[in-house]
Amino acid sequence: MKSKRNAIVGQSGGPTAVINASLYGVIIEALKNKSKIERIYGMINGIEGFLQNQFIDLGNSLTMEELELLKTTPSAYLSSCRYKLPEKFEDAVFKTLFEKFNELNIGYFYYIGGNDSMDTVSKLSHYAEKIGSDIRFIGIPKTIDNDLVLTDTTPGFGSAAKYVASTISEIILDASVYNGQSVTIVEIMGRHAGWLTAASVLSRKNKGDNPVLIYLPEVSFDFEKFLTHLKKALQKKNNVVICVSEGIKDASGKFICEYTSEAAIDKFGHKALKGCGSVLERIIKERMNIKVRSVELSINQRCSSSLISLIDHNGALEAGRQGVLAGLAGETRKMVAFTRDRINDDLTLSCSLVDVDDVCNKEKLIPNAWILDEGTNISEEFVDYALPLIQGQANIPFENGIPRFVYR
Amino acid sequence: MKSKRNAIVGQSGGPTAVINASLYGVIIEALKNKSKIERIYGMINGIEGFLQNQFIDLGNSLTMEELELLKTTPSAYLSSCRYKLPEKFEDAVFKTLFEKFNELNIGYFYYIGGNDSMDTVSKLSHYAEKIGSDIRFIGIPKTIDNDLVLTDTTPGFGSAAKYVASTISEIILDASVYNGQSVTIVEIMGRHAGWLTAASVLSRKNKGDNPVLIYLPEVSFDFEKFLTHLKKALQKKNNVVICVSEGIKDASGKFICEYTSEAAIDKFGHKALKGCGSVLERIIKERMNIKVRSVELSINQRCSSSLISLIDHNGALEAGRQGVLAGLAGETRKMVAFTRDRINDDLTLSCSLVDVDDVCNKEKLIPNAWILDEGTNISEEFVDYALPLIQGQANIPFENGIPRFVYR
Repeated sequence: MKSKRNAIVGQSGGPTAVINASLYGVIIEALKNKSKIERIYGMINGIEGFLQNQFIDLGNSLTMEELELLKTTPSAYLSSCRYKLPEKFEDAVFKTLFEKFNELNIGYFYYIGGNDSMDTVSKLSHYAEKIGSDIRFIGIPKTIDNDLVLTDTTPGFGSAAKYVASTISEIILDASVYNGQSVTIVEIMGRHAGWLTAASVLSRKNKGDNPVLIYLPEVSFDFEKFLTHLKKALQKKNNVVICVSEGIKDASGKFICEYTSEAAIDKFGHKALKGCGSVLERIIKERMNIKVRSVELSINQRCSSSLISLIDHNGALEAGRQGVLAGLAGETRKMVAFTRDRINDDLTLSCSLVDVDDVCNKEKLIPNAWILDEGTNISEEFVDYALPLIQGQANIPFENGIPRFVYR
Repeated sequence: MKSKRNAIVGQSGGPTAVINASLYGVIIEALKNKSKIERIYGMINGIEGFLQNQFIDLGNSLTMEELELLKTTPSAYLSSCRYKLPEKFEDAVFKTLFEKFNELNIGYFYYIGGNDSMDTVSKLSHYAEKIGSDIRFIGIPKTIDNDLVLTDTTPGFGSAAKYVASTISEIILDASVYNGQSVTIVEIMGRHAGWLTAASVLSRKNKGDNPVLIYLPEVSFDFEKFLTHLKKALQKKNNVVICVSEGIKDASGKFICEYTSEAAIDKFGHKALKGCGSVLERIIKERMNIKVRSVELSINQRCSSSLISLIDHNGALEAGRQGVLAGLAGETRKMVAFTRDRINDDLTLSCSLVDVDDVCNKEKLIPNAWILDEGTNISEEFVDYALPLIQGQANIPFENGIPRFVYR
């Protein structure tokens, strides 16, 4: 490997509140290692945009002040893509990509994303091996879904979980202001893994508090059982708050949201989910004489800057830094992962490296043993796991009364 | 009037992030005036709950620590109602209410709410005059809609506007991460007045930025014109963010949300609105070949504690205090109102009193001159008006990673 090479970084998949903290970590660590990394490029719209020559020199693009703002700006500063590389290395796209890498004298490739993005890191590193390229490919984990395997948590989850737990605790207050029975259904993101929806349990002050019913995609959903659970809950509580994951499905595997409308399919073959809360709202209206409303937490749960978890934010930043250092140390086909330590009761997250082949295209689900009461409740083990991840608040600069962000 | 009487306070209408700051103001000012006010009672579920003997002694119910938490707890601590007093004084409910007031030796009645609640204050004060009762009736303003007349602003609006402006600025970032054209529709609360939706203009960094189209209930909505506006906007911008008020209606007066489903009607005859964003999403899907999604800010815009405006919060607290003092000074049939002063470029709000008869059942709309570009844009006059109201952040205590609230 030549002594001085360039690095390139991209962001891929859905935005989060801290994906730019990881980008910040990559940039500052790259800039610190001037002796090995000459330039740090940023792909615009990930690998898809890079294929169309969309990239910038990050060392020249941001002032020091903008770099500071990047740390707490949600969404993806470099923009994103949902682009899947072909399965076969014979496809011309691989040759094209490596020609572009070589033109730019790329020695280090850093990709911030979820399991689909790790698929990109895996394929590129295998192709590099095949053609004898010395480029290092490192994945930096990101997803609010917390569904990456071989890591204690994934940056983005802690902040989204803090948003969910805080917002549900406010919705619970709002739901109880009027006399008479009512049902509030809150729909939370999560296609196959229920981690984020389970975080709603952190809103509870005491056992038996709202949200009294929590439904995850890990357990088959049954309409009749649901109505039975609800009737039972209404015997104990006037105002029932229910949290449901967007991805709940029935025993046949049909998504509950599909009971209302056609679901679009994205490029990775995932169904774009929306509306299981509305489906449940309609069924309750049809079958029970009770006031009911549904609320979708929607994109705010992944892009809100006002409830960024400090431990999540620090983890995201550190994952970016450690990714750069791993590449510099000659590692490739690796993803930065987290392990958990406790020092005097405080959680600390340490970074390690795992084989990206063991991570990509896999999903970590909530253990069955953590799901209780016929799939309507979450265990204390989950609380012990998740509570440390929502601790602390990142300090957000304000301007003109609203959070101040950096714009590309 | 006997030298020592009791006071009673209630909350009515929709919750806000600062209605409990007004309640805090009432409680501390009442407790300060021990020589005149012996007890401060709180009606549970407003006048409706009080009729069923639902009330508590607030002097005994809250510890000092809980009282402090009350200041930043959103939603209505005393719970709320949407109860309209009969039009005719012959109705037995008035006699019943005043018998209950007398049983409790009530001398002062404070009601925190919007224009429907001011109708309650007006009717009770007129009835008191008719029967020769010396009870003082004072209204304390509250509504996120900012639609009360004779006051510069209404507590609740500033915080909701800060939430809207901040959240839209995050949605704008989120909306621009993928390549290709897209439309994001954000639906914001506001039945007849567009103040809160207009606050989305505060998200813009520069002229021409998103949200590029803003639709208010003050202007008739036309589907064909809307599609023309949108096509024009897409010529300038890849990712268009549109903000619409839940209450937009067509030239015939039909709510746009009614194009999808039956709208329920509440006790005051207001239609419960939901879904004009979905209606517009569907129409764009049918008529244009473009990626589109709709987001409802839903109840979080009125009950989020994470973006409470400091000036709004202080105003709410002061309105509660001044309401108590007005009653003690012998005033009745009055509402606390705000006037605006500028001291060294900083906005300060001062409290005054207005006749509640001139406020109740009226709605303040956005002036026509402030609505530009065929009803799709908001003028600088609005920005000058609204920007000072979202300044500063209230300090929220946290516990276990989420905001700490007081529960009744």
